[in-house]
Amino acid sequence: MSTSEFKQAPHKLLVIPGPIEVADEVLYANAHPSMSHVSPDFVPVFGDSIRMTREVLITKSAQPFLISGSGTLGWDQVASNLVEQGDHALVLNTGYFGDSFADCLQTYGASVRQLKAPIGGTVPLADIETVLKSEKFKVLTFTHVDTSTGVLSDAHAIAQIVRRVSPETLIVMDGVCSVASEEIQFDDWGLDVVLTASQKGLGTPPGLSIVVVSERAIQVYQKRKTPVTSYYASWDKWLPIMKAYEAGSAAYFATPPVNLIYAYHASLQLITASKQGPSLQQRFALHKEASRRVKEAGAQLGMKQVPLNEREAANGMSALYFPDGITASDLLPRLTARQVIVAGGLHPAIRDKYFRIGHMGISVVDKQRGDIDKVISSLQEALQEARASKK
Amino acid sequence: MSTSEFKQAPHKLLVIPGPIEVADEVLYANAHPSMSHVSPDFVPVFGDSIRMTREVLITKSAQPFLISGSGTLGWDQVASNLVEQGDHALVLNTGYFGDSFADCLQTYGASVRQLKAPIGGTVPLADIETVLKSEKFKVLTFTHVDTSTGVLSDAHAIAQIVRRVSPETLIVMDGVCSVASEEIQFDDWGLDVVLTASQKGLGTPPGLSIVVVSERAIQVYQKRKTPVTSYYASWDKWLPIMKAYEAGSAAYFATPPVNLIYAYHASLQLITASKQGPSLQQRFALHKEASRRVKEAGAQLGMKQVPLNEREAANGMSALYFPDGITASDLLPRLTARQVIVAGGLHPAIRDKYFRIGHMGISVVDKQRGDIDKVISSLQEALQEARASKK
Repeated sequence: MSTSEFKQAPHKLLVIPGPIEVADEVLYANAHPSMSHVSPDFVPVFGDSIRMTREVLITKSAQPFLISGSGTLGWDQVASNLVEQGDHALVLNTGYFGDSFADCLQTYGASVRQLKAPIGGTVPLADIETVLKSEKFKVLTFTHVDTSTGVLSDAHAIAQIVRRVSPETLIVMDGVCSVASEEIQFDDWGLDVVLTASQKGLGTPPGLSIVVVSERAIQVYQKRKTPVTSYYASWDKWLPIMKAYEAGSAAYFATPPVNLIYAYHASLQLITASKQGPSLQQRFALHKEASRRVKEAGAQLGMKQVPLNEREAANGMSALYFPDGITASDLLPRLTARQVIVAGGLHPAIRDKYFRIGHMGISVVDKQRGDIDKVISSLQEALQEARASKK
Repeated sequence: MSTSEFKQAPHKLLVIPGPIEVADEVLYANAHPSMSHVSPDFVPVFGDSIRMTREVLITKSAQPFLISGSGTLGWDQVASNLVEQGDHALVLNTGYFGDSFADCLQTYGASVRQLKAPIGGTVPLADIETVLKSEKFKVLTFTHVDTSTGVLSDAHAIAQIVRRVSPETLIVMDGVCSVASEEIQFDDWGLDVVLTASQKGLGTPPGLSIVVVSERAIQVYQKRKTPVTSYYASWDKWLPIMKAYEAGSAAYFATPPVNLIYAYHASLQLITASKQGPSLQQRFALHKEASRRVKEAGAQLGMKQVPLNEREAANGMSALYFPDGITASDLLPRLTARQVIVAGGLHPAIRDKYFRIGHMGISVVDKQRGDIDKVISSLQEALQEARASKK
């Protein structure tokens, strides 16, 4: 059968902050007949996926790595390739994922200092500046959108401070929940690493670790004094592979996830090929519009946002406190009954007090699907029903 | 649409030693609509995949790990969880993959000794015994089927020697190219780790690292004196996740490759559910039969096997030298023209002198497909044509 004949099975609407709804053509590509990973038919698909990844991050010269693994593998890549025993790392912590990134850095020998934001907040820029002046850090990491809280960090402002105060510090951004749903100007902002995964804004099933590295960071890695401390995550192994595939020839270190690369390629074509749909800039605008609609609807229903400051709320997801007197078990099963799947809380300190809605990818870009309308009307109905049941 | 309506696109017959041809129902499962990794609908699919993995390896109590990644990630799991700085590892090297496993073990601090077999041969059992008596090894590793040479090691005999001579040494088998195509009696033979990947005998697209660990090896890991040296490959992170999913509840460390787990589940159902097809033992017999047919056809065409000893040749693949006067460029394009994709040589020392044919999974189990007939007739025709062109 052909791609135009394939329709995915009927299913509940998945609006968690990843995995997200995936287009039929992307799922059909994931069902591609088996192909050799060194086939001349597959090589350009891999090469084009590398090139289109650059387009999404608006970078000319950074080096993408596409490796079989969860987004988490990106942390290992950063920690094992860029950090040497005893190097100092500064982690800006805006939730669950900052804790974990710090844990990963320590596993590979980093001396980690954390600046912890209050729940729903970000680390004040002035604090970052003070700490950068007091100590020399090899890397600074932050989470662009913390999936646990929906907090959006100001990546551009953070990068400006680092470049001004501590120009040699590498700027590492965890963009797992932001790439392709939030604007990222990799080159213009002077980022060094953006790591992400396939199953959120990039609209592909999970299983692909995507890491993009600046020329400066590649040089730092190449000047290491000690060997890379991971095998599977080692750029010694993967850099020649990525260069080979992009240049149009195959090379082998480990078998790539061939079907998933086909799927990623199909999704990147939708994201970058402006002839078929919105441009990348229009895509970001559509995410902002959907986000505003969901957050306004939540506010009207008495749902306060977890992010403390409106300008620090993600556009690809919303983290909303339950209204007074309403619990998770009042609301979430009633959404499920309406075929709408949202996510519960994740941040340990407030886990039972809030829930999370993802609004990324085709659910916001393809308005004809009506996904955002469905989310909002289901929220309204479910809450009304929950309140009625309490009387 | 439903699974019975899905047919994969027409394509060339892929008979390399992995990835292999995949059944329509497995590809359809890979195109499953997006699901939450913590959905109550998905949890039992993950749990059953863990249980069926045990069935394939004929073990009651070993612990499977199903993690997003290439087969290579299994080496990192072994090296970072079971080996501590300075521990001694003995690598039985039967080709390309022995070299790489040794490299991985060294990355994580092992002191590695290698016993190298001649090309096409295995390490003599007496040599293994001598070395085990001379030095204490924390782990012994060997490649069950070396994908680069098609050499099959006698896993049972190796395990017997280790258990007799050095009972505390952990027996680690790289089964990437053997699981589900060669018989493996995990418990009876006393293996400690079998690591594999989804895209060979297990008949699933690539992207899943599958590692099965004995209770004894789990205890050795739990008694480590130093922390695990990887983050992404750490069983500290993954053991609670695997236990949770198998017990029927979700847990989170990193997002699993949800679609690929559905696909793996669908393939495991075909492999283990004897009502629908051959039993596991019949499956192994079918691999032997197909292997014999391919190797006999090769012999009749003047193609010598890379394995020096008939009893040490894999049943899931064949590595065949080109006949006298015939090169890769004479034969392989003529197979491609007949829609049959085989693999070139991989072992650096003989790379241009031989080629490899995979005969695993549905290509051998579903005889109605006629894949093995097609492979043999195409080999005969392509060679005849190549010879004629030389006259």
